[in-house]
Amino acid sequence: MTLPLAVSMGDPAGIGPEVIAKAWLKRDAHALAPFFAVGDARAISAVWQGPVARISDPAEANQAFATALPVLNVEDGGEIVPGRPDVDGARCALHSLEMAAGLARSDAARALITGPVSKAQLYQIGFNYPGQTEFIAERCGIAGDNAVMMLAGPTLRVVPVTTHVALDKVSAMLSIELIVAKGRATARGLQRNFGIAAPRLAFAGFNPHAGEGGAIGREEIDFIIPAIAQLRDEGIDATGPFAADTMFHDRARVTYDAAICCYHDQALVPLKTLHFDEGVNITLGLPIVRTSPDHGTAFGIAGQDKAEPGAMIAAIKMAGEATARRAAADA
Amino acid sequence: MTLPLAVSMGDPAGIGPEVIAKAWLKRDAHALAPFFAVGDARAISAVWQGPVARISDPAEANQAFATALPVLNVEDGGEIVPGRPDVDGARCALHSLEMAAGLARSDAARALITGPVSKAQLYQIGFNYPGQTEFIAERCGIAGDNAVMMLAGPTLRVVPVTTHVALDKVSAMLSIELIVAKGRATARGLQRNFGIAAPRLAFAGFNPHAGEGGAIGREEIDFIIPAIAQLRDEGIDATGPFAADTMFHDRARVTYDAAICCYHDQALVPLKTLHFDEGVNITLGLPIVRTSPDHGTAFGIAGQDKAEPGAMIAAIKMAGEATARRAAADA
Repeated sequence: MTLPLAVSMGDPAGIGPEVIAKAWLKRDAHALAPFFAVGDARAISAVWQGPVARISDPAEANQAFATALPVLNVEDGGEIVPGRPDVDGARCALHSLEMAAGLARSDAARALITGPVSKAQLYQIGFNYPGQTEFIAERCGIAGDNAVMMLAGPTLRVVPVTTHVALDKVSAMLSIELIVAKGRATARGLQRNFGIAAPRLAFAGFNPHAGEGGAIGREEIDFIIPAIAQLRDEGIDATGPFAADTMFHDRARVTYDAAICCYHDQALVPLKTLHFDEGVNITLGLPIVRTSPDHGTAFGIAGQDKAEPGAMIAAIKMAGEATARRAAADA
Repeated sequence: MTLPLAVSMGDPAGIGPEVIAKAWLKRDAHALAPFFAVGDARAISAVWQGPVARISDPAEANQAFATALPVLNVEDGGEIVPGRPDVDGARCALHSLEMAAGLARSDAARALITGPVSKAQLYQIGFNYPGQTEFIAERCGIAGDNAVMMLAGPTLRVVPVTTHVALDKVSAMLSIELIVAKGRATARGLQRNFGIAAPRLAFAGFNPHAGEGGAIGREEIDFIIPAIAQLRDEGIDATGPFAADTMFHDRARVTYDAAICCYHDQALVPLKTLHFDEGVNITLGLPIVRTSPDHGTAFGIAGQDKAEPGAMIAAIKMAGEATARRAAADA
């Protein structure tokens, strides 16, 4: 019997509970593998009238899934008001994440899908990681730097080499080693999670027109070109650096399996321009499969039945497919 | 009788001549206003077998246009080989630009559309402007800094505040004054050229998540927010700064008339992701209407009948519409 997927609810006052419930409603249309939610069951009932099955063990999830949304309850007291985050909710989000990650790590769940949390809320209760990804990496015994964030939509996958840093600081953070490490992890991640035998990586330049041979910036010459050469020496199909503005139209996207970008917006602007409601964040380089919908808590629309479950559905689907591919490859 | 539009051929060895000829072939399907090409007629015949009417005065263009591509010949000697640029070709490109700009400036042509030139080739003959735009601005008696580059596609218009500079230097170039100047020129340009009475300008942040209130970068606080406030004081509908990755999906784009971006790729990546073959560069802030297709000389495919005329057609169409709107507003 295949193990179920664990979905942490994220902040109980955000749209996490709602999109999880809506994803369950569409389980058949999208052929979703059985999953269970981890979090405060009251957060679900506050925004959804559908059937909930409280479970006390992930093993109960598969059977319950057909007729109700299975929930492994994590309660931290306090009242739950959609759209009104508080510290009790932040504690609940962290405990839910911790439990869901532990279940995936200990093979009680097949993969981890994480609902959106509020970093500002988490910081108030002493959370000291840049984000959920680094927390999960540590729980898996992996250094945060080795966990690679990939954003994936139906026609584009992107990997930002740097993430939430001021744009003016990015150049100083780039190095051949960092770019090579991200390229390597991306190639391996595409093989393991997406079943792509010989992944094609396209690297974006840092400057306009990829620097025009050094005329407008040297990051390509100093870091990106040598990193590509090293990856090619290792047998990885790495190409570029390409002018970023020529990489993301329809004809360009079919020529590679992932675009490796230098900074947050270079990766996220094309991804969200094309796939705003379907983007999935998948963490490469972990022993477990971990995905999450590429949106935030959206407190402003929580509890109003406005949240679109597309990205959560895509995250659950991708986690199911990735675990199946890993299992097949390891068999 | 309405004046014809002047289209400079650009580098005779590039795809300019081919896309101009192909645009003429589709003149009826796209309801293009009469135009004439300015450049070496041999560059057209080297890549196209269709009818050409050599004219000696723009006044002859309207009548000739129905049955042949009118060409005002500019010859600088040398052999023309598509895909093989040389200094004679660069001289011809510059003379063609100069003549076409002069005709538009002196009201012998209704507007200027410029074909693609090679900056590397032009620099070899002593051209010392960053690009065609600055050259045209000077011929119009406008300081280059006051000419604003807007890239426009069917569903998105973007204005980069800085253009061909190393990304690491952009932060130091930003100022409240510069952003206000670009915003003002954009608002006025949307009124004059696009007939938008009360243009809505959306400003992108510089940093990921628009800096998160200063947590990841201060350019928003130091420059963009004060610039928006000043523009609003002047009665311009300016909003933002927005996280760039949330600005360009379908639902976001309908909320503004132009996005003002901090740097080249922030503007060009979404524009070309969405509208790679249809992007038009329109220069705002000039006394004349000037557009150009948003692509280069593409020497690599010149003379092979592979060039897509979509962007040239869009540039000609936009120039015709913009002059009509200006005339109506001034009447």
